Amino acid sequence: MRAHVRIIGTGLIGTSLGIALTNAGYDVALDDPSPTARWLARDLRAGRIDVDEAPDVVVVAAPPDVCGAAVVDALTRWPEAVVTDVASVKEVILREVLSSGADASRYVGSHPMAGRERSGAAAARADLFDGRAWVIVPHDSTDARSVQAVRSIATDVGAAVRTMPAAEHDAAVAAVSHLPQLAASIVAAGLRDLPEPAVGLAGQGLRDVTRIAASDPRLWTQILYGNAPALVHVLREVQEHVAEVVAALEAVAAGRAEGALGTLSRVLEAGNLGHARIPGKHGAPPAAYEVVSVVIPDEPGSLARLFADVGEAGINLEDLQLEHGIGQAVGVAYLSVVPGSVEPLLETLAHRGWRVHQ
Amino acid sequence: MRAHVRIIGTGLIGTSLGIALTNAGYDVALDDPSPTARWLARDLRAGRIDVDEAPDVVVVAAPPDVCGAAVVDALTRWPEAVVTDVASVKEVILREVLSSGADASRYVGSHPMAGRERSGAAAARADLFDGRAWVIVPHDSTDARSVQAVRSIATDVGAAVRTMPAAEHDAAVAAVSHLPQLAASIVAAGLRDLPEPAVGLAGQGLRDVTRIAASDPRLWTQILYGNAPALVHVLREVQEHVAEVVAALEAVAAGRAEGALGTLSRVLEAGNLGHARIPGKHGAPPAAYEVVSVVIPDEPGSLARLFADVGEAGINLEDLQLEHGIGQAVGVAYLSVVPGSVEPLLETLAHRGWRVHQ
Repeated sequence: MRAHVRIIGTGLIGTSLGIALTNAGYDVALDDPSPTARWLARDLRAGRIDVDEAPDVVVVAAPPDVCGAAVVDALTRWPEAVVTDVASVKEVILREVLSSGADASRYVGSHPMAGRERSGAAAARADLFDGRAWVIVPHDSTDARSVQAVRSIATDVGAAVRTMPAAEHDAAVAAVSHLPQLAASIVAAGLRDLPEPAVGLAGQGLRDVTRIAASDPRLWTQILYGNAPALVHVLREVQEHVAEVVAALEAVAAGRAEGALGTLSRVLEAGNLGHARIPGKHGAPPAAYEVVSVVIPDEPGSLARLFADVGEAGINLEDLQLEHGIGQAVGVAYLSVVPGSVEPLLETLAHRGWRVHQ
Repeated sequence: MRAHVRIIGTGLIGTSLGIALTNAGYDVALDDPSPTARWLARDLRAGRIDVDEAPDVVVVAAPPDVCGAAVVDALTRWPEAVVTDVASVKEVILREVLSSGADASRYVGSHPMAGRERSGAAAARADLFDGRAWVIVPHDSTDARSVQAVRSIATDVGAAVRTMPAAEHDAAVAAVSHLPQLAASIVAAGLRDLPEPAVGLAGQGLRDVTRIAASDPRLWTQILYGNAPALVHVLREVQEHVAEVVAALEAVAAGRAEGALGTLSRVLEAGNLGHARIPGKHGAPPAAYEVVSVVIPDEPGSLARLFADVGEAGINLEDLQLEHGIGQAVGVAYLSVVPGSVEPLLETLAHRGWRVHQ
């Protein structure tokens, strides 16, 4: 039978995990310092509350700043239990556990790469981990049984397990998660005092770059705080790039163009190369999809009609992006399909009266 | 009858404008130093080529670095014609025109806020300007007739006209367009030398922040180059923010946390505030839509089934985002609808067997 899992902290991640594990047949006990948080999680069917029996596995889903202490506490309170945590930063927590003198062989860190702009149990979703990466972070004294126990939990909620050491994990998320968050926030911060007409020129590019600037400052402050060393390393490189660009643009403004164009295009080309490395759908290498754009009238059911027509053509959409213009009631849908599907798609849609373009 | 418009430069913007104006009943003449570029644009029905008669309006859609010279040349060659350009930066061009001694009263700058990651006539779209902002940039000596002529062209291709002085325009695009491009490129540049497992942790946030890092370096080098002074001003602020964050994180890494949390959360909160100012759909103030998420099986026609079901419920999607997990064949669609539509939508979809979450 499935293990008895105790989840400490019933926020977005803890509650979503509770729901997913309960659905997967686990016996889940919920714990949270806030009674109302516990009750809400229970009502969302994330598990039982006020449970005392010893768990097989403890998952600490507490805020980053109390996570380490909660892991140490769990290792001490339940001498047989495997303990893991789901914090976005792993080295600080590992250090705290190792220095605590608690039995670290039963601790293995983990980090499900899942989240939303919304936080709290109310935003919980049973499928939050579906198809997401779940990083497992063993250390020198972790025993195999503990790694296996956490691996089972991750795979049973549909996540794809990756294993890497704490330092490597923290350096990775600094580059692929924490820097993008800071970049989005800093670009968006520049809009705060912009004149209204200027903000009115915002396009899809700005929207995409700043989408995650809407994230929860309280949570992210703790995440960045917890990954200080790795993040400083990444930000130093950014500072060099920005300084190069500023120097080049100052030279241009001063009428000295030599080398400036070279510097600017080097940065932009480096961006092309880095962007090309981002995995595409389902972590597969980015496939060369063709994009077909369709003009969408802004009326009820128009997207429905479009996709019904696409469906009847038996074509699978690999990706989809919806773009909104301003000042006019019309949008453009970008449909990504495999090259072989472009012709049939264009034909079908044009035949059914859509304004399509490749 | 409609005016005779001569378009100089048959790349993405020039060719798209030619097609849109031809559809709108204008008599369009195309000009480009490259014969093959001219022929392609003509074959795409963007207008006639090898035309000599004097135009009523000249639209210069040449690359930024030759745009000013082309405007001056047009003002001189056709003494009656209104001349505009579509370059993304306006002050450099205005200066060149004013200092040239040509009749500047017939020049009015403009900037259609439209483009794609792809460039060239082959990427042209008749609807490229549909619902986009088109900034008209008059100067002290521009006469009213010239402004009116350019305004007609913009509105006839479906754009929403905005009017602002060159300096104001350049400062605006530095913040809402050029900085986001640099931020995306610099964040993406950091991925170039990242270990493969680290890149494998890339999520939707990174994808969004770096999407425009795929843009054409040749074009963007010229755009950034042309807006050097305004961009330096914006980048100085960015440097201050980054320096603050680095100092705070270094203090944390050195065990001195005082004030660090405050600095980090100030930057993240400023990002929240700036992000909230970005106009939503159709330039309307961002509406409070509710988001319903639906799990999508990765099989042909599944999106079609979803939208058919949404359509039959008679519900209008305000926005849509498709998210791909890694390692598993499943995606999540986020459907934005007005609050009143949430319940009926959840009900309809659940009833039809979809895994929905609010």
